[in-house]
Amino acid sequence: MIQAANRIVSGMRPTGPLHLGHYFGVLLNWLQMQQEHECFYFVADWHALTTSYDEPRKIKGFVPELVKDWLASGLDPERCVIFQQSQIKEHAELHLLLSMLTPVGWLERNPTYKEVREQMQKDLSTYGFLGYPVLMCTDIIMYKPKWVPVGQDQLPHLELTREIVRRFNHLYGDYFPEPEAKLTESAKLPGLDGRKMSKSYGNAIYLKDPMDEIRSKVMSMLTDTKRMRLKDPGNPPDCNLYPYLQLFEKEDYLKEVWDGCINATRGCGDCKKRLAVSLAEFLEPLQARRAEYDRNPDLVRDVLRQGDAKAREIAQQTMANVRTLLNFDF
Amino acid sequence: MIQAANRIVSGMRPTGPLHLGHYFGVLLNWLQMQQEHECFYFVADWHALTTSYDEPRKIKGFVPELVKDWLASGLDPERCVIFQQSQIKEHAELHLLLSMLTPVGWLERNPTYKEVREQMQKDLSTYGFLGYPVLMCTDIIMYKPKWVPVGQDQLPHLELTREIVRRFNHLYGDYFPEPEAKLTESAKLPGLDGRKMSKSYGNAIYLKDPMDEIRSKVMSMLTDTKRMRLKDPGNPPDCNLYPYLQLFEKEDYLKEVWDGCINATRGCGDCKKRLAVSLAEFLEPLQARRAEYDRNPDLVRDVLRQGDAKAREIAQQTMANVRTLLNFDF
Repeated sequence: MIQAANRIVSGMRPTGPLHLGHYFGVLLNWLQMQQEHECFYFVADWHALTTSYDEPRKIKGFVPELVKDWLASGLDPERCVIFQQSQIKEHAELHLLLSMLTPVGWLERNPTYKEVREQMQKDLSTYGFLGYPVLMCTDIIMYKPKWVPVGQDQLPHLELTREIVRRFNHLYGDYFPEPEAKLTESAKLPGLDGRKMSKSYGNAIYLKDPMDEIRSKVMSMLTDTKRMRLKDPGNPPDCNLYPYLQLFEKEDYLKEVWDGCINATRGCGDCKKRLAVSLAEFLEPLQARRAEYDRNPDLVRDVLRQGDAKAREIAQQTMANVRTLLNFDF
Repeated sequence: MIQAANRIVSGMRPTGPLHLGHYFGVLLNWLQMQQEHECFYFVADWHALTTSYDEPRKIKGFVPELVKDWLASGLDPERCVIFQQSQIKEHAELHLLLSMLTPVGWLERNPTYKEVREQMQKDLSTYGFLGYPVLMCTDIIMYKPKWVPVGQDQLPHLELTREIVRRFNHLYGDYFPEPEAKLTESAKLPGLDGRKMSKSYGNAIYLKDPMDEIRSKVMSMLTDTKRMRLKDPGNPPDCNLYPYLQLFEKEDYLKEVWDGCINATRGCGDCKKRLAVSLAEFLEPLQARRAEYDRNPDLVRDVLRQGDAKAREIAQQTMANVRTLLNFDF
């Protein structure tokens, strides 16, 4: 059982452009990890079908857009392997083999399964959606990583992956290492309206939003809804904007904001203007890098195809070993 | 939507050597069809995992043995394409895509699903077993055949395939033709003990059984169990041996047997001896052909690899089209 001692695998589904919630919730961790680990980051386009099987046309456009967001944010193809899941056919094969040994009950008990089915506005009672944790497991163990970066809410998925690995090893001999959780901390950024930032709520600031749109989105943000007039004192912990300032501002300035808010000497408009400026400073270099890729779409394709080749080499080796273990080659 | 006007696809799971029940139930039809149709016959080794995921070691040995049984029986690789499912990775990919659009309810309602789970002596509540009709559908439609040869009991499976095809075409555009049932008639041969001939009942005569074993198996067959002594009259419709005679003997001789049996002038031993001779005559040339392949295992491998190449060419074309339809290539 050989484990890549320093390897990390993680993926994102190409379901739309990335927003600040994605950046500070996931991407920032990815950027940090590429400094210290051997990282495999993939566009989970087959996964996107588990919930969007009826609109695959969207997925196509989102694949390069997602990679552009990654590269613009600073993912470096010299430091990490960036690949497209559906280009590595070995994932489909391993998925099929793992499906044979995974009890249906494990999948039905997956807490996210019921939850997402209830949230989504459409019928998700498909075989593929029931089995998405099998595909998830496949995507991870193919590369035998030491770690998978997960938030607390993703722990049941990783536990399921580990269970499938144990069952595989029990049936066919110790081969796949059990990946471990690398618990990541991340800022939870609220959306413009205070709910979780999400495309489906229409409350997101996207990394590629034009600057004037960002400004007008920021100006429209809900702050402390109990503070009706400038003369009313506000409470920063009840303000949707304050977590943003915490990301961008130094302690001194935050104290000034806090005091001004609770003493009603500072208006929400001041905070909004300041945030609009900070966001512009933060996003401008990112958007400049993105513009390069917009001008040269081949660059994005090259990054993917080079990453695919690196991923495929490992996947082919894994599958050769798996076929030997299962005695499948004749 | 292009359909191969004369094409047939069918497969067998490599779960053990073939017996007379397989020959007269399925193979004989395959032999006839290769004369008139473009036939694709495959070793369904991935399928074998749906019920034998815990003993893959067995499958390996059974793959060449199955093909030897086919070739010995007269399947002609010049007339039909003989291939190994797991060598055509495109099946795994299409299976994954079809899994996304197949409602779990369709699979749970599959009548064979419950039946086989109750019959088998082990836990089959796996994700892969629940989904085996999706894999079955994949194996068929990949080659866009006009027909699938099925017995009456297989009709629900084919209907499920057609339902999945309709859903695919509805979502992504008319592409896959709905395969039609080619209802096959076949002799139902009882096993030595009168139950259905089956490996698991230990009541089978295998195509490769040595002649002396065949003779002693035939001599041990249950005939009409109500006929205790030679002097008792018998009733051929109650005799397990009589259907065999019907396969091998002419009308005149059958009439002789019938009269001798119901008038108690002919003993069961006579029928058994006659059947042993007929079976030897039938199986000897078959076993002689088989012996050639036993001496040259490479011949079997060559047949499979050449068939794989032909199948793969079509499968790759199908998947290129499917990926275009789903807008998956970037």
